[in-house]
Amino acid sequence: MKQRLTIVKVGGAVVEDDAQLTQLLADFTAIDGAKVLVHGGGRRATAVAAQLGIETHMVEGRRITDEEMLRVVTMVYGGLVNKTVVARLQALGANAIGLTGADAGIIRSDRRPPVKKDDAVIDYGFVGDVRQVDATMLARLIDGGMMPVIAPLTHDGQGHILNTNADTMASETAKALAAHYDVTLIFAFEKPGVLRDADDDTSVIPVIDRQSFEAYRADGTISGGMLPKIENALRAVDAGVARVVITSATAIDGEHGTVISKTTN
Amino acid sequence: MKQRLTIVKVGGAVVEDDAQLTQLLADFTAIDGAKVLVHGGGRRATAVAAQLGIETHMVEGRRITDEEMLRVVTMVYGGLVNKTVVARLQALGANAIGLTGADAGIIRSDRRPPVKKDDAVIDYGFVGDVRQVDATMLARLIDGGMMPVIAPLTHDGQGHILNTNADTMASETAKALAAHYDVTLIFAFEKPGVLRDADDDTSVIPVIDRQSFEAYRADGTISGGMLPKIENALRAVDAGVARVVITSATAIDGEHGTVISKTTN
Repeated sequence: MKQRLTIVKVGGAVVEDDAQLTQLLADFTAIDGAKVLVHGGGRRATAVAAQLGIETHMVEGRRITDEEMLRVVTMVYGGLVNKTVVARLQALGANAIGLTGADAGIIRSDRRPPVKKDDAVIDYGFVGDVRQVDATMLARLIDGGMMPVIAPLTHDGQGHILNTNADTMASETAKALAAHYDVTLIFAFEKPGVLRDADDDTSVIPVIDRQSFEAYRADGTISGGMLPKIENALRAVDAGVARVVITSATAIDGEHGTVISKTTN
Repeated sequence: MKQRLTIVKVGGAVVEDDAQLTQLLADFTAIDGAKVLVHGGGRRATAVAAQLGIETHMVEGRRITDEEMLRVVTMVYGGLVNKTVVARLQALGANAIGLTGADAGIIRSDRRPPVKKDDAVIDYGFVGDVRQVDATMLARLIDGGMMPVIAPLTHDGQGHILNTNADTMASETAKALAAHYDVTLIFAFEKPGVLRDADDDTSVIPVIDRQSFEAYRADGTISGGMLPKIENALRAVDAGVARVVITSATAIDGEHGTVISKTTN
């Protein structure tokens, strides 16, 4: 039987708020077995950029990352947020080790080429799409008693850091580690799960598989930004991740929220 | 026979200059055997602080690190400088892993208490004095095929990052790893070695031991900031580090500069 491993992805809002972070890290360390934390940090990056006189430009929720902005996210994600979380986990007795995709070469990506959008060409700049996760190296750290804390940065293998989506890094890491561990992937966000009714936090859908997802999509129950999140989760379970859970950052024990399960035809 | 390990400490000026960094990393990767790089980053921290409207205060060459400045050095040392170096080393085929003392708990320090200086009390703020290096954990990374790149930050074990002198981190790391490896510690700086005549770069003293150091100190040949550097080096060789070399950042092959050797009475 494979060892149990839980990967928790949390957004920037949680790690940037002291009280929320304290609660999250207490809950995180309470999870049994091996663990990996993947974090964001976008709001803090925007704030530091503004303080430096650098304007933030977002296109469809993604940050345009020119050379100046790359320096900001490298400082904020790889330095400020990552090391704050690591030091806090160490104080809780968890042997956290902060990593970007460049560290030990764990996650390599390809710089996203400019994309055509209507009449315009959008160049996201130094933004990476995950190409490869080195599960062997990650497993070496985990089996060596370390708890990876991963910042949303990767590298292209040619000396460049690339700004990378934390959700994607979490699910690609989960897929790669599924060969070594019994992986549960938890996406923690501000809602208690996938809701039937966006205005009713008690309307959490307990389980979604491919079939029910298609039905919810067709009737409009699930829409917008939740669609790619669930697509991502379904691909992860199809690729061998045991369980994917979408839940509130205050309920990451795996017993709450929406479970995305493998298609069981 | 113990495995050979070389620890190179380079100051901020070298890692912050693109051409010098390129040369340094090429030379560094060319060194045989296991390797650790310890870097500074002070000038970049001062520049980023200024850009953020934060004034830098130095006392006897040490940065006063209040909460704001701690955020800056955490961003610059742990993020910008460290990850830039790691990505560059990865591109050279070296499996670099960026670490602060907090990561995997490798270096713990004590926050320096305020010190009396003449009539004033100097509070350095979030500055750490190294208490303990976890050589077992570092060796696990090194023996696992990774090359630690260490930023001048540690943690106090209570959740705080502390700004820490890179020279001290390098020598304490060398001493701790001397139990596991045949350690050479190289301090790379702007001069070709310890000079008999500060104005003559060809006047490098090839070897210094405790006895000759005392003589050079007594006659004034060695003075100022070089005194604690050599004291530090002598303590390292006394503690089991095989060799300490003080040399130029452009000559880190261990065949140049001043060798600090164990007292051979």
